[in-house]
Amino acid sequence: MPDEVEIKWLCDIKPEALAESLRMAPDAKTTADYHDLLNDPEVDAVSICTPNLMHLQPALDALAAGKHVLCEKPLAMNGHEARQIVAAEQKSDKVFQVGFQTRFTGEAQFLRKYIDSGAMGDIYYARTQALRRRGVPGWGVFIDKEKQGGGPLIDIGVHVLDLTLFLMGHPEPVSASGVTWNMLGKNPDLYNGWGDYDRTKFTVEDMAVGFIRFANGAVCVLESSFMANIKDDPFGTTILGTEAGAEIFFYNDQRVRIYRDDNKELFDLTPRSIPEVKTSHVAEVQAFVKTIKEGAPSLVTARQAMMLNSIFDALYKSAETGKEEAIQLV
Amino acid sequence: MPDEVEIKWLCDIKPEALAESLRMAPDAKTTADYHDLLNDPEVDAVSICTPNLMHLQPALDALAAGKHVLCEKPLAMNGHEARQIVAAEQKSDKVFQVGFQTRFTGEAQFLRKYIDSGAMGDIYYARTQALRRRGVPGWGVFIDKEKQGGGPLIDIGVHVLDLTLFLMGHPEPVSASGVTWNMLGKNPDLYNGWGDYDRTKFTVEDMAVGFIRFANGAVCVLESSFMANIKDDPFGTTILGTEAGAEIFFYNDQRVRIYRDDNKELFDLTPRSIPEVKTSHVAEVQAFVKTIKEGAPSLVTARQAMMLNSIFDALYKSAETGKEEAIQLV
Amino acid sequence: MPDEVEIKWLCDIKPEALAESLRMAPDAKTTADYHDLLNDPEVDAVSICTPNLMHLQPALDALAAGKHVLCEKPLAMNGHEARQIVAAEQKSDKVFQVGFQTRFTGEAQFLRKYIDSGAMGDIYYARTQALRRRGVPGWGVFIDKEKQGGGPLIDIGVHVLDLTLFLMGHPEPVSASGVTWNMLGKNPDLYNGWGDYDRTKFTVEDMAVGFIRFANGAVCVLESSFMANIKDDPFGTTILGTEAGAEIFFYNDQRVRIYRDDNKELFDLTPRSIPEVKTSHVAEVQAFVKTIKEGAPSLVTARQAMMLNSIFDALYKSAETGKEEAIQLV
Amino acid sequence: MPDEVEIKWLCDIKPEALAESLRMAPDAKTTADYHDLLNDPEVDAVSICTPNLMHLQPALDALAAGKHVLCEKPLAMNGHEARQIVAAEQKSDKVFQVGFQTRFTGEAQFLRKYIDSGAMGDIYYARTQALRRRGVPGWGVFIDKEKQGGGPLIDIGVHVLDLTLFLMGHPEPVSASGVTWNMLGKNPDLYNGWGDYDRTKFTVEDMAVGFIRFANGAVCVLESSFMANIKDDPFGTTILGTEAGAEIFFYNDQRVRIYRDDNKELFDLTPRSIPEVKTSHVAEVQAFVKTIKEGAPSLVTARQAMMLNSIFDALYKSAETGKEEAIQLV
Amino acid sequence: MPDEVEIKWLCDIKPEALAESLRMAPDAKTTADYHDLLNDPEVDAVSICTPNLMHLQPALDALAAGKHVLCEKPLAMNGHEARQIVAAEQKSDKVFQVGFQTRFTGEAQFLRKYIDSGAMGDIYYARTQALRRRGVPGWGVFIDKEKQGGGPLIDIGVHVLDLTLFLMGHPEPVSASGVTWNMLGKNPDLYNGWGDYDRTKFTVEDMAVGFIRFANGAVCVLESSFMANIKDDPFGTTILGTEAGAEIFFYNDQRVRIYRDDNKELFDLTPRSIPEVKTSHVAEVQAFVKTIKEGAPSLVTARQAMMLNSIFDALYKSAETGKEEAIQLV
Amino acid sequence: MPDEVEIKWLCDIKPEALAESLRMAPDAKTTADYHDLLNDPEVDAVSICTPNLMHLQPALDALAAGKHVLCEKPLAMNGHEARQIVAAEQKSDKVFQVGFQTRFTGEAQFLRKYIDSGAMGDIYYARTQALRRRGVPGWGVFIDKEKQGGGPLIDIGVHVLDLTLFLMGHPEPVSASGVTWNMLGKNPDLYNGWGDYDRTKFTVEDMAVGFIRFANGAVCVLESSFMANIKDDPFGTTILGTEAGAEIFFYNDQRVRIYRDDNKELFDLTPRSIPEVKTSHVAEVQAFVKTIKEGAPSLVTARQAMMLNSIFDALYKSAETGKEEAIQLV
Repeated sequence: MPDEVEIKWLCDIKPEALAESLRMAPDAKTTADYHDLLNDPEVDAVSICTPNLMHLQPALDALAAGKHVLCEKPLAMNGHEARQIVAAEQKSDKVFQVGFQTRFTGEAQFLRKYIDSGAMGDIYYARTQALRRRGVPGWGVFIDKEKQGGGPLIDIGVHVLDLTLFLMGHPEPVSASGVTWNMLGKNPDLYNGWGDYDRTKFTVEDMAVGFIRFANGAVCVLESSFMANIKDDPFGTTILGTEAGAEIFFYNDQRVRIYRDDNKELFDLTPRSIPEVKTSHVAEVQAFVKTIKEGAPSLVTARQAMMLNSIFDALYKSAETGKEEAIQLV
Repeated sequence: MPDEVEIKWLCDIKPEALAESLRMAPDAKTTADYHDLLNDPEVDAVSICTPNLMHLQPALDALAAGKHVLCEKPLAMNGHEARQIVAAEQKSDKVFQVGFQTRFTGEAQFLRKYIDSGAMGDIYYARTQALRRRGVPGWGVFIDKEKQGGGPLIDIGVHVLDLTLFLMGHPEPVSASGVTWNMLGKNPDLYNGWGDYDRTKFTVEDMAVGFIRFANGAVCVLESSFMANIKDDPFGTTILGTEAGAEIFFYNDQRVRIYRDDNKELFDLTPRSIPEVKTSHVAEVQAFVKTIKEGAPSLVTARQAMMLNSIFDALYKSAETGKEEAIQLV
Repeated sequence: MPDEVEIKWLCDIKPEALAESLRMAPDAKTTADYHDLLNDPEVDAVSICTPNLMHLQPALDALAAGKHVLCEKPLAMNGHEARQIVAAEQKSDKVFQVGFQTRFTGEAQFLRKYIDSGAMGDIYYARTQALRRRGVPGWGVFIDKEKQGGGPLIDIGVHVLDLTLFLMGHPEPVSASGVTWNMLGKNPDLYNGWGDYDRTKFTVEDMAVGFIRFANGAVCVLESSFMANIKDDPFGTTILGTEAGAEIFFYNDQRVRIYRDDNKELFDLTPRSIPEVKTSHVAEVQAFVKTIKEGAPSLVTARQAMMLNSIFDALYKSAETGKEEAIQLV
Repeated sequence: MPDEVEIKWLCDIKPEALAESLRMAPDAKTTADYHDLLNDPEVDAVSICTPNLMHLQPALDALAAGKHVLCEKPLAMNGHEARQIVAAEQKSDKVFQVGFQTRFTGEAQFLRKYIDSGAMGDIYYARTQALRRRGVPGWGVFIDKEKQGGGPLIDIGVHVLDLTLFLMGHPEPVSASGVTWNMLGKNPDLYNGWGDYDRTKFTVEDMAVGFIRFANGAVCVLESSFMANIKDDPFGTTILGTEAGAEIFFYNDQRVRIYRDDNKELFDLTPRSIPEVKTSHVAEVQAFVKTIKEGAPSLVTARQAMMLNSIFDALYKSAETGKEEAIQLV
Repeated sequence: MPDEVEIKWLCDIKPEALAESLRMAPDAKTTADYHDLLNDPEVDAVSICTPNLMHLQPALDALAAGKHVLCEKPLAMNGHEARQIVAAEQKSDKVFQVGFQTRFTGEAQFLRKYIDSGAMGDIYYARTQALRRRGVPGWGVFIDKEKQGGGPLIDIGVHVLDLTLFLMGHPEPVSASGVTWNMLGKNPDLYNGWGDYDRTKFTVEDMAVGFIRFANGAVCVLESSFMANIKDDPFGTTILGTEAGAEIFFYNDQRVRIYRDDNKELFDLTPRSIPEVKTSHVAEVQAFVKTIKEGAPSLVTARQAMMLNSIFDALYKSAETGKEEAIQLV
Repeated sequence: MPDEVEIKWLCDIKPEALAESLRMAPDAKTTADYHDLLNDPEVDAVSICTPNLMHLQPALDALAAGKHVLCEKPLAMNGHEARQIVAAEQKSDKVFQVGFQTRFTGEAQFLRKYIDSGAMGDIYYARTQALRRRGVPGWGVFIDKEKQGGGPLIDIGVHVLDLTLFLMGHPEPVSASGVTWNMLGKNPDLYNGWGDYDRTKFTVEDMAVGFIRFANGAVCVLESSFMANIKDDPFGTTILGTEAGAEIFFYNDQRVRIYRDDNKELFDLTPRSIPEVKTSHVAEVQAFVKTIKEGAPSLVTARQAMMLNSIFDALYKSAETGKEEAIQLV
């Protein structure tokens, strides 16, 4: 936590969770009702870490109370909710930042800067992957379609798709074809790397694939799984531009690679000056604070986050209808 | 050429081409009119190697003349033509084999047999790639949309998509979303690995991506390029089944890898008994001859090849309309 | 130490060792006479960690006192002693577990389960290695034939041979040919990786090799050294079955590899779901406690451990006589 | 064939084999009766390439006729036959060389010279391997116990054991414990890398392991297989000396590595000056000719080759009796 | 710090630095005037860690006061200063050790011992490198020619050159040709791995190369940089002897490799018994204490360190004059 | 040989050499006196392949006769001779090309073009190596100082130094410090990779190192050996520019690697579009013919080649005097 930040309030409806949090911020006041802290004029900013289906109202209230907001991802349960927050954001002069921390890794920052220099030309295609071979999170509500809204697409696909849109410069998504399967996740005969779970409760997709069109002619193919018979667990994206292409992957295969043409010669590039970011979550909070202090525009706006919710709405609908579906942004 | 085969006729409208061919088969008769050989009752089978737009009539005539036919890929210029050949094939009792030689590699034969054993379960997704970084064939008509019908999709994508359908067991394709770009191929500032060419004549796509739905719920994402800013030139396919997944790639990365679950344990498998096939084209001809002698059904039917033409029709149309398009099979 | 375990007594004849142990279990009672704790009715189980030549009497007394016993390996100084403990074990209804912790690694557990599934067929040959290039433990009594009974065979060979018998399903050993050398260990001109020591006191073998026959026709070749001019320090075993073969190695080369045939195809398998066991000693204690609580049979019986003592008896005798020797089990 | 050699006669009982051989030596005389060429005073040396069970009489006759002899390996069907040839060799002043060509590889020559320099000290242990994963030679008589006498031990184990004895300096073998199995070779469900064969005719062992004691206290463990569930096909030997150890392997893993101690420091050595021998068979013939011309002693004596036959006699007997057996040398 | 050492005094002119040091040695007396401790008869030895330009007087005073001295490297600002300390050293009977800790790494100790055994013959050439790709230490005075005297040559080149002279046995340097550049260090458009700095203040060389002749005919080429467009950051030396050559490198490429000839055979050697030295600085202090206690000669004499200062004097002068310059040792 | 070239004459003083050459050009006229062909007006160009000490007069005569000349490297025995040819070249309007074929490799052409684009900035340092571990050419006159003029410097160092000057853009060399040794080449106890030779006749240096200054402030360190105790045989150069550095190496390590800075980011570059040149000698002849036909300036002028002779003169002199020597260019 940056030095210039003071934690004034902790809010939770569960007393034991409050107690736990107090250990890290012993001087903070506590409450079970978030309006208490919104009413405190000494509070400048709030961080919303409630479950997904509890983002909407706190976000609207916080902005209405004139607070800066750092809100966990995904922004909302669906595009409809998300667009309400966008409307509030647009009326506010406060910083509203959504918690997409992958953007704050050294790799993403490096590549964004490289693209900004024009070195990749126009980006027209992305192959984006958040695939796990056997990584079903059997705890919590991750496998409960009712409560979570979806499976790997919502949970981890959201990270790599946000990264991809960030690198592409947020072109406007237009329509999407999607497909989801639930064949491995409910099969009790399969190994799971994160421990066994009740297969009968697995109601989300175990894998989803989407084909997303953007207004500028670009396309993104998105693959995401909790379980699939593949090698390793790719988490990242490959983007193709008219001047160069790039790969950016994390975890067991952390790397950025660039493939380009210069003066009619072909090169493979290995960047050697990627900044080391130990914890992207810390970097994200530092950026939020810096943005507030400098009066700068939000680095991760609600509008950008809303696009993701709207894309997922279209993908899930397309998976049901078996047809391409339009993406609703307003 | 298998020993049991005798080359009786050579046919070409260009005398110098005939002369060249005679060097390999000095005892053959020659003609510029293919009806001559179709009328020869001693001829059992013909091989059609004419340009794509000259496949239809010779194929129909050969079948009508009661000859077995080995016809170069792609079967026809489009689905409409291809379906006429399918109709003729269905009325004939002769062997009609299309020249998709990739199926006859040791890798493809191995994997097809592995799938047949049920070891992969149901195959529900394929990521299929025939990508070249800088491999524009600047000669002939490969870059002429008018004469060739399309770019990498038609020329090399056809091979890996045929391989993929072969491995999937030819499920019925239903609809497709496609996108094509022509941004690198016409850029005179880019290197080409196969020599320079007149950039202004590059009228085909340099890259195409498709999302293809099948009636059984499976999906295939197809990527194909003559030019793209990527590492190396992947040529092959990744298929995911409910019991196992597999990768099969050729050229600079020749391999088959399998990822599976057995008794709730996870394994990476490297096959060590893939048959060595020196030249898949020779293997294809041997298979054709063996099929005829045994009175067996064709190993690469016109109907299977027609599916590819029809899928490409839908992909190119979708690339123009910006919308998913139905695939016409009848 | 599992939560359900309470340390009631510490016993040592050396007061300073007791003092040291008390730091980890400050509430325990202490004694120099192990009968004190055997007489305590609140004690359910004892752990015997005395030197090898002090295992016999405490083990017999503990079983006689109705305690469960976890006894360090090797079980005894020789087969004669070991068989006395087996006799006591057979009369007792308590759990007697010997401290062969290698069985409790994730690798060993994985492979044992794999063999149990029948996937390897009948195991007929093992090449078992506990080889060190320059790893003489110059301290304590490891190099003193008189006090230790032997060299690498007794000290580290015992681990890999136990692992091998565990994987083979404990077939009955019948006879053994052995050879031992003491040529490097006493040579003052050779490097030792664990520090210099008095070469004149090196009276054990520096390397031993054995050829062990089992009643079911299987054979095990065992190699063990403190010093040998070899690459690295292999520690593990290779076992061949009629359906598959497997390698399991530890330390600088931790791996399990499987080589098999399925449907007349050949595969190399890399398991990807081996459970991570941080400390096999902890896993061993957890298993001991679980066995007691569930009233299950011992996972490492005295009888299994006795086989090892008897095999070593035969190997050492054979090394002296230069002839194959019978293995005495009763 | 060295220039100084002239092929005078070709002998075979099969006319078509003679015709084939004549293509390489058109000026040679031919016969079906080898006495014709033994009677020709212009013949200095003969090469015996008859089947194993036809080595004895020709070898005795050739020596009796005063010819130098190059005889294919193994020397004879068993030790009894081999010892008769040794007796004849000892009475003759001609060169009798047995066809163990592995000694003439650059690797073997290098290591033999290295050992001669004393750099390895005394060699006391060898682990010798001629293992194939799936390499049954289904043709000829290789799998026919009756006609061939044995399986991999006789066919390929003989090469690596000869190499090992050559490197050890031919210590006198004393006794051997052996085991053979025939479990994979006759199983029709297993793949074979060299094509299918009639499993019911596989009467030799598919794998053999031996433990061989020498008079000087050294021991050799020998492993040989046509089929075993292992990685790759190791073909070579590992020898341990008091000053250094060495590995020498051929084919897919061609290498010599040395592990040694110098001045109480430890080193891995990669030799960089191994002579390139393109064809060890040619080198063997060149050596034979050179030996004759220089009047030097044979480089591969009948006595050395007899040791191998006698060791195999003991191993096969031990495999039957289940007991260690003495090796008969006289 | 070895147990037998007691820290009696801490001396610094900056009170806050003294306070910091007291935390590690709370019982020490403190002073801002180093004469206080030189006057204390209970002080046996002093450690001089002042900036380079403050080595001369304290060193002379300490020796005059009869103290043993451990003095940080480089010994002095230039050869002229260094030679005054050498003169004092030669008159004293105390141990004067200079802080070249690289000599105390396991790698350097191993190789020095190997050379001492005569195994490398005469060393006649060294290629010595302390190169950084982008490692400008922008803080302190490292880039200030005025205060630091030079750039990478003084700061890091000094380490590898000392190592090289140590391995060569300190032959007498005779003359040197040098060149320095300052082209990258002052360029604000270049990346620096250790953070940005004020490019206008970069007044030292960014790279230097020297060619140094010794009286025995040997030559050393020295390369050192803070910034250069190279792969990685080699830090070490390659030395060629008449019997063998060796490479010794540190950091991202820690290794010793030896290339030699034995009995007209060629070998690559990988040492496997290099002692593990966790912290070479600790090893250096331990050696200092041991030397004092044993009354042994200093392991890093002022005379050896003076050679380095004198070589640098010649190199910098040569870089200015563009001509080879003599090295002044007296 | 390019099609447009006709070989009219073959000239040699040895009749058997002429006979041999006639096999490749059966229609050519032959002579032992080169004036015959210089007098033939149908001859446009001559190729001089005489021994080094026979380059001068034929070169002068050929230019005087108005012929284009392709002259083998090195241009002459020393700078004095070379400067006479330069004088003749400057008076002539014909193409005079020296046989430095390394420039015509794809790697050199690629890098020269890359440097021309300005991508490397100013090149200020080169480390140039033509080192062999055990590669003494014992035949011919390569080891005869009298007849050959020098050892590896003259024979192979000349290639890499020419390459380096070519890449640096031929800055003017000013002075050089050199050293040569002859310690390994004459030692009969050392292995040689190319066969044994009479050690007493080895009168050239076995290794040479030079430090060469250029007028523009750049420096080149050159290392060349026939024998040295090193890993492998590096043959190529490393050049450092203000914007980028590059390595170019041939044979067992064929590669170009570039290390650069772009927009304050650091990259390793692997070029992927290096043209494949099968035989650089053929490429050299093609370039010679093309230059003549286009009336273009020579690609390898006598003046460039003279620089190398003059540098070697200075290096050898410096090796004798032990001092830096000036390089004489006029």
